[in-house]
Amino acid sequence: MTPLKIGATIGILGGGQLGRMLGLAGAQLGFDIHIFEPEPDCPAGRVAARCVTAPWDDRAALADFAAQVDVITFEFENVPLESLAFLAALKPLRPGTQSLTLTKDRLIEKQFINSLGIATAPFVAVDGPDDLRPALAALGPNGILKTRQLGYDGKGQMRVTPNADIGGLATLLADQVWIYEGLVDFEREVSVILARSLTGEIVHFDVTENVHQRGILNTSRVPAAISSDLSERAKTHAATLAVQMEHVGVMAVEFFLTRDGSLLVNEIAPRVHNSGHWTQDGCHICQFQQHMRAVAGWPLGDATRHAPAIVMTNLIGEDVNLSSDTLAQEGVFVHLYGKREARAGRKMGHINTVIDTPHK
Amino acid sequence: MTPLKIGATIGILGGGQLGRMLGLAGAQLGFDIHIFEPEPDCPAGRVAARCVTAPWDDRAALADFAAQVDVITFEFENVPLESLAFLAALKPLRPGTQSLTLTKDRLIEKQFINSLGIATAPFVAVDGPDDLRPALAALGPNGILKTRQLGYDGKGQMRVTPNADIGGLATLLADQVWIYEGLVDFEREVSVILARSLTGEIVHFDVTENVHQRGILNTSRVPAAISSDLSERAKTHAATLAVQMEHVGVMAVEFFLTRDGSLLVNEIAPRVHNSGHWTQDGCHICQFQQHMRAVAGWPLGDATRHAPAIVMTNLIGEDVNLSSDTLAQEGVFVHLYGKREARAGRKMGHINTVIDTPHK
Repeated sequence: MTPLKIGATIGILGGGQLGRMLGLAGAQLGFDIHIFEPEPDCPAGRVAARCVTAPWDDRAALADFAAQVDVITFEFENVPLESLAFLAALKPLRPGTQSLTLTKDRLIEKQFINSLGIATAPFVAVDGPDDLRPALAALGPNGILKTRQLGYDGKGQMRVTPNADIGGLATLLADQVWIYEGLVDFEREVSVILARSLTGEIVHFDVTENVHQRGILNTSRVPAAISSDLSERAKTHAATLAVQMEHVGVMAVEFFLTRDGSLLVNEIAPRVHNSGHWTQDGCHICQFQQHMRAVAGWPLGDATRHAPAIVMTNLIGEDVNLSSDTLAQEGVFVHLYGKREARAGRKMGHINTVIDTPHK
Repeated sequence: MTPLKIGATIGILGGGQLGRMLGLAGAQLGFDIHIFEPEPDCPAGRVAARCVTAPWDDRAALADFAAQVDVITFEFENVPLESLAFLAALKPLRPGTQSLTLTKDRLIEKQFINSLGIATAPFVAVDGPDDLRPALAALGPNGILKTRQLGYDGKGQMRVTPNADIGGLATLLADQVWIYEGLVDFEREVSVILARSLTGEIVHFDVTENVHQRGILNTSRVPAAISSDLSERAKTHAATLAVQMEHVGVMAVEFFLTRDGSLLVNEIAPRVHNSGHWTQDGCHICQFQQHMRAVAGWPLGDATRHAPAIVMTNLIGEDVNLSSDTLAQEGVFVHLYGKREARAGRKMGHINTVIDTPHK
């Protein structure tokens, strides 16, 4: 449990934008960063001391990767559990496999959340086509079918409405296991980003208010327009989940705030999260540095917000081609991911806009 | 003069901590970074997409480096001018060779500064041992001998006092050309960091107050304890120099403030500067991002200071082994350079301490 030495090497599984921003934050603290990523020429690999390009099930490559690092973390939860378990036997893995086991399958995740007395949207398992009609009968015809694993940014989800073609829908369910979630009439979506250290210390960032469009996060805004009581409840729920997961590092908990004032957990992300990107320009220590500190076994840092208010806006697809006017705009801070192709629906970068800057 | 495209490649000459922090800032903006550095395993190379390890006079390596980047900049002024001129013929070099020509030789630099009506300490050229006694006779026996080129962090300097062994000193002067500077009885040292864009736009950071120990910068503090009139004069002088140099990018001007209220330029650094490291935690856009924006031909960013007051402290040699208490201290932000050996006198990192954080 001794903190990682100055200049040690941190391995990151996954080479996308989250891995890239984790790598940049780790480098600021003097660490060497190694990346493991199946796709060649990944964004994180281009800012790392070493990048291993190999499939997740390449045991030799995984072992070689582990041999050259002091500790391992991941940028996303879709690394196969077998690969993680293999690595965890070779080097410290932070967070541990438990954080993944409890969150990567939506059914297990929701059962875990409910078991702690924390509410979610109503849900039932849909193991195959035959389970669809009973699910609709139980929760009503307005809801969402979600794959139990591997969904993100609205992928692996289907909206169900009263006039849906149930027979047609059912045929789409054959290859995977699903859950059916009753639709929640929510007023707002908020999220809590926190970090938990190796010694169990927890530091929260301020609660963030999120707006999604077509299943992809569009903006995050701080401070969230909710009462301090609700904000404290959300933080307490997130801390309860982190402690039960024995999580080490940053994690995010997304909530629906319903019109009657209830907080329902939508999803746990056992990692740095898009809705925490505002911390890069709103706080002294951002979510990425906080995660690297936790992974290194360092004490967590000062997550104080210094911006009075800030909005993060994702740059999707061609949005990345910012105008000179935007680049020159006061209070606008640009973060781009170095992705080669601006495909539609792809997260290419984000901008943080500070709304009212003090000390002018 | 069109701005560099999103995802273009910026080459940096020099792979030390300044190159590393420039690289990290460029990566945040989505650029690929290539480093050219004679020393293997350099700090900047470990956060770059490519690192060329070759001597400064290896024309083939320089040409290959230039071929793979869109624009070239440098982290320090001791790159040989011939190498820079060679590269400038192949790709845009920002700042250009003129910024180097006017600042890398102390005699030329001071003559340039004086030619613009801006004061320096009194100086005379000392081309060899025979020039020493006349120099002392002209400016008095209290002063500093400095090599005209390649000095930094107090290296290449000798203090002269009334009881110095002049004959012994003279024998040390044979191999190089020097200048002799009359000692200035200064009250404070301050510096101005500014950026000048490709279109001539100039953005200043706040004036910084610096304390050196044994020739190495120890602390920088903002705001400097000087009048706003003096602060404006310092900024105006720095802007005059930048315009005359046709500088593109960040540069620093160090001043002595004498007891009678005069501002004397001590030195121009045509690059990012140690006394601007506070901007990383005191401003929304730090000197490193500002430089990369200028080099990319982008508009300069918002350099507003958001911290009410901030002190940068260099970590020299073993200082880098920070205690857990320091790592955990509120308002303390750590930057380490990934250097392998903590040799005495070597800059290993720095910490920025925000003195009074608003919005707690």
